[in-house]
Amino acid sequence: MTDFWNGIPDITARLDAVRARMKSVVGSDRFPLAEAVERLIDANGKMLRPAFLIMAGRFGRRPKDLTDLAASIELLHIATLIHDDVIDEADTRRGIPTIHSLYSPKEAVLAGDWLFSRCFRLASDSSSPGNARLLAALIGALCSEEIHQDLDRFRWPRSARNYLRKIAGKTAALFSLALRAGAVETKASSANIAALTRAGYAAGMAFQIMDDVLDYESSSGDMRKPVAKDVREGLCTLPLILAIRADPERILPRLGPGKPDERAVASIVDAVRESGAMESAKAVASAYTARAMRELSRLPKGSASDDLRATVERLLSRTY
Amino acid sequence: MTDFWNGIPDITARLDAVRARMKSVVGSDRFPLAEAVERLIDANGKMLRPAFLIMAGRFGRRPKDLTDLAASIELLHIATLIHDDVIDEADTRRGIPTIHSLYSPKEAVLAGDWLFSRCFRLASDSSSPGNARLLAALIGALCSEEIHQDLDRFRWPRSARNYLRKIAGKTAALFSLALRAGAVETKASSANIAALTRAGYAAGMAFQIMDDVLDYESSSGDMRKPVAKDVREGLCTLPLILAIRADPERILPRLGPGKPDERAVASIVDAVRESGAMESAKAVASAYTARAMRELSRLPKGSASDDLRATVERLLSRTY
Repeated sequence: MTDFWNGIPDITARLDAVRARMKSVVGSDRFPLAEAVERLIDANGKMLRPAFLIMAGRFGRRPKDLTDLAASIELLHIATLIHDDVIDEADTRRGIPTIHSLYSPKEAVLAGDWLFSRCFRLASDSSSPGNARLLAALIGALCSEEIHQDLDRFRWPRSARNYLRKIAGKTAALFSLALRAGAVETKASSANIAALTRAGYAAGMAFQIMDDVLDYESSSGDMRKPVAKDVREGLCTLPLILAIRADPERILPRLGPGKPDERAVASIVDAVRESGAMESAKAVASAYTARAMRELSRLPKGSASDDLRATVERLLSRTY
Repeated sequence: MTDFWNGIPDITARLDAVRARMKSVVGSDRFPLAEAVERLIDANGKMLRPAFLIMAGRFGRRPKDLTDLAASIELLHIATLIHDDVIDEADTRRGIPTIHSLYSPKEAVLAGDWLFSRCFRLASDSSSPGNARLLAALIGALCSEEIHQDLDRFRWPRSARNYLRKIAGKTAALFSLALRAGAVETKASSANIAALTRAGYAAGMAFQIMDDVLDYESSSGDMRKPVAKDVREGLCTLPLILAIRADPERILPRLGPGKPDERAVASIVDAVRESGAMESAKAVASAYTARAMRELSRLPKGSASDDLRATVERLLSRTY
């Protein structure tokens, strides 16, 4: 994962400091599962959200150490992953046994709750009340969207507008919050705050659409089975929505009210790929990427905006 | 439950306002499970925590509407109940089907998370940053204690000091926070804040000890089986701790590393009752009750302190 940050100076060291802060939080207050959560922190990915926050802080007029707020945002992410693993009954995440499998669902639910509380505390200690509130509002929106999505499983809702609204409230809102909070905390100009907020939104939209496209493109295991996790779980993402629109006769009969078997999954994936929907979805993502880059180009020239543009470009090309 | 507040003027109307505020929060933001959570709010008990908060607010020098903060504290309580029901796989609570049984554990975990986030948001909107932080710290402590307790199940730890520390971080901390926050928000004198904080702590200790005593005293169902939920779940509370101290030869052989069967439960309950531990545990609770009343007597005379004393007395006599 370190590779991702190659050629973007400083950020690795800053993220190491965030990771250390996260561990010191987890190691405090007699928290009984500290070791297990620390392993999750070590196995954690690129740490995009804290990186965005820190990079946005470079546009401020009053520099400020954002380590605590960055740690808070990433702890929140870890808390949601822990709860996701309970919900999905996952045994491992990134090769690390989940808390739910090491202990029990009970411990995992409580560990997630504990992290939520520490993350709110850290956010309210280290940021303006406005940003702490924004963070709380965002978590609420994320949970709410997740519930909506779950209740819609296997109903195959076909509205591209609802899909876009859903990811706007999820990935786009998180990216946007990270960039906005970094700028607000360091007293950036309102023009820069607005450009960063909009860039984060557009980048988040592009990122999530590409994520959903990749789910149809990649394959796993010896048999090179399509991953198609979304179809298996009854989720209707942009490629499938656009494929239904392009070729309803072929696709609709394959979508039922229950979990599809392997053959059905393979035939849905083939139909989506052959419908041209992948290309259409990528075009939507590209439009959002272009919008993100346009917003970033409004920022003052210099290494701060060069680094941020390089990150977004790299992220959306998805070669890492 | 209304009976409990008989003769304590105003409080029922104030608690109705808190309940209405809780429902308006739950009904906002496209929250998909609003109806199910509203039913939980209606079936909710005495609403002790918000009542304490509001009653403490009467000692302040600058009166303030505490409805929002009270709603936040009680929503937090509801959130923990929802997560408890997932963990315990309970089908009903107070006769109402649990969210976990109506939908799925996934929805229940997310609904609890959503409520957590709304509760933090409401707390940070409606209280001083200090109280919002205190609330976040307290949730963290509660989760942490719960995990400790769960990891200790069926190990029958026998330290009265650890038991007292555990309930201090749980019920006592919550009661104490409710009274303290009401006083702080309305700018009570520091002497009154201190007396209320200490009274809440002592009342919480007494309340929890009596709760743990009642678990050995009451019986349920046609066969009048002892409830003894704690023993069944492998939890070692004060009556059992004191019974082991009084009569180790009789009790220790009955405590194993796994769930006891009905006969074992009945024999442990008999042994605890006959050891004199119930009386000793009640004496400890009485000492805390006396301490709570002593602290309350330091408050200015008047209906505010009369009402609060009546509530604590009523609560700790446990006739409701």
